Amino acid sequence: MKLEKNLRLYQEVIDPPMTQAELDNINSAQFDFAQTLGLKLTYCAKDRLEGELTVEQRHLQPTGIANGGVYCVIGETLASLAAVAACGKPAVGMSNYTDLLGSVREGETIRAVAKPVHVGKRTHLWRVEMSAGGRLAAVTNLKLMVMDS
Amino acid sequence: MKLEKNLRLYQEVIDPPMTQAELDNINSAQFDFAQTLGLKLTYCAKDRLEGELTVEQRHLQPTGIANGGVYCVIGETLASLAAVAACGKPAVGMSNYTDLLGSVREGETIRAVAKPVHVGKRTHLWRVEMSAGGRLAAVTNLKLMVMDS
Amino acid sequence: MKLEKNLRLYQEVIDPPMTQAELDNINSAQFDFAQTLGLKLTYCAKDRLEGELTVEQRHLQPTGIANGGVYCVIGETLASLAAVAACGKPAVGMSNYTDLLGSVREGETIRAVAKPVHVGKRTHLWRVEMSAGGRLAAVTNLKLMVMDS
Amino acid sequence: MKLEKNLRLYQEVIDPPMTQAELDNINSAQFDFAQTLGLKLTYCAKDRLEGELTVEQRHLQPTGIANGGVYCVIGETLASLAAVAACGKPAVGMSNYTDLLGSVREGETIRAVAKPVHVGKRTHLWRVEMSAGGRLAAVTNLKLMVMDS
Repeated sequence: MKLEKNLRLYQEVIDPPMTQAELDNINSAQFDFAQTLGLKLTYCAKDRLEGELTVEQRHLQPTGIANGGVYCVIGETLASLAAVAACGKPAVGMSNYTDLLGSVREGETIRAVAKPVHVGKRTHLWRVEMSAGGRLAAVTNLKLMVMDS
Repeated sequence: MKLEKNLRLYQEVIDPPMTQAELDNINSAQFDFAQTLGLKLTYCAKDRLEGELTVEQRHLQPTGIANGGVYCVIGETLASLAAVAACGKPAVGMSNYTDLLGSVREGETIRAVAKPVHVGKRTHLWRVEMSAGGRLAAVTNLKLMVMDS
Repeated sequence: MKLEKNLRLYQEVIDPPMTQAELDNINSAQFDFAQTLGLKLTYCAKDRLEGELTVEQRHLQPTGIANGGVYCVIGETLASLAAVAACGKPAVGMSNYTDLLGSVREGETIRAVAKPVHVGKRTHLWRVEMSAGGRLAAVTNLKLMVMDS
Repeated sequence: MKLEKNLRLYQEVIDPPMTQAELDNINSAQFDFAQTLGLKLTYCAKDRLEGELTVEQRHLQPTGIANGGVYCVIGETLASLAAVAACGKPAVGMSNYTDLLGSVREGETIRAVAKPVHVGKRTHLWRVEMSAGGRLAAVTNLKLMVMDS
């Protein structure tokens, strides 16, 4: 896969943090679901990831606010990348628990920060807080299993 | 909102089930996140919803399988519609717990069925099972609060 | 540990179901948290477990109904035993998601049934429904990791 | 109920924090599930609660470590009290999501801290971190609904 060839990701622990060129490489990949949605990675290191997504009409649910699934996807994607960045190996999500705490409207930007809760040899737990306009909108807790390479 | 004007949804309990014309109306709406992803509603009644999504390249994560967030979105969207279909009022998701149990590849179709676990006056709990090729791939438990109109 | 010496549990897949003598053996063990709470195992096979607990004053929270943690414990305990019964190996809980759906008062009996959602080589997901007086009171989804012996 | 008569809890927001006499009053109540288990409240204010439980034989599961349900109960109980302390009204738990991250043995003390994630008019989300010997053992996320008095 092209992404894996070009990047430290999946090959080593991300320390020091990704350069802007590395972030641009990930953000320009076309095949990934996160990119389909417009999620941009803005910071990536072994102990913290950050990303953002500006809500457009295509992210809305019928009542005019962002579909709750948007937060789940942001949390899933950032936490999955975070686990890989922290251990240098592939990791698969086992469960995604997302609390939906506020609503976000078209034009607002959701800023997300992923931090580790538990980084073990076989499993990880990452917590992703998502805010817009200074208000907490959602929190994802993603549990992952590290795959032996 | 156009969707609300054209449909029984948000106005009454969906009994009898939606006609094919009503399903087509929802599936052709352009502003909704679910439609952005290619999720089609195939059955909608007050006590069961069904939908499907065929996995394309744009749904994948870097390792070549569907991004776990895809299941969360399907679960969130079907369960939210299901709650509205069951009570005839708007409902907002409060928490989305999705177990990720299997992987699905490009070209496979995810079939999802939403059934009620608890339908109360103020809160609902819906469970959405998602399968592909006869194997269970994910289960979402969505808790919602009913909004008084 | 005495329990492990006397029982098929932890040594083999429980098929056929436990005899009444085997259930009595488990229910009379003194060191286990479940027994401390008064939880009785009433059926145990590789694909289903059942148990019950009669709510007493010591299970209540200050407002006079059973503490929500009681359901979490029942779910945790039955699902953990169920995973062991299904695979014949030790298994440890990784996450416990319990929806609290109704209240139960002193003197009522909570009946619980554990069924498998996903039984894989490395992880299990079990779902435990708990009812009292015919009403659903809570549901636990317990995710476990199988330990290699 | 005696507890409600003697305490600010359930009647007002707990600010300033409880005195030692108020904590002793709660810890000596006999009818509560938390007290049955030996959970002691050590700090209680509107924006933070702390408690501790020393693991005894009666808290163990068959493999000799604390039953995972013990953490769920600690999280449920502290977060429920915390919600009441923060709003001065009764609140009922709607869902308890507990990640089980480490094991604790007989004689070790679990220290728990509850902090608010979201305190709304109708719903709260509290997060309870539980540690023993400096290691994180479990985290509970409890969602509650505030009851109008």
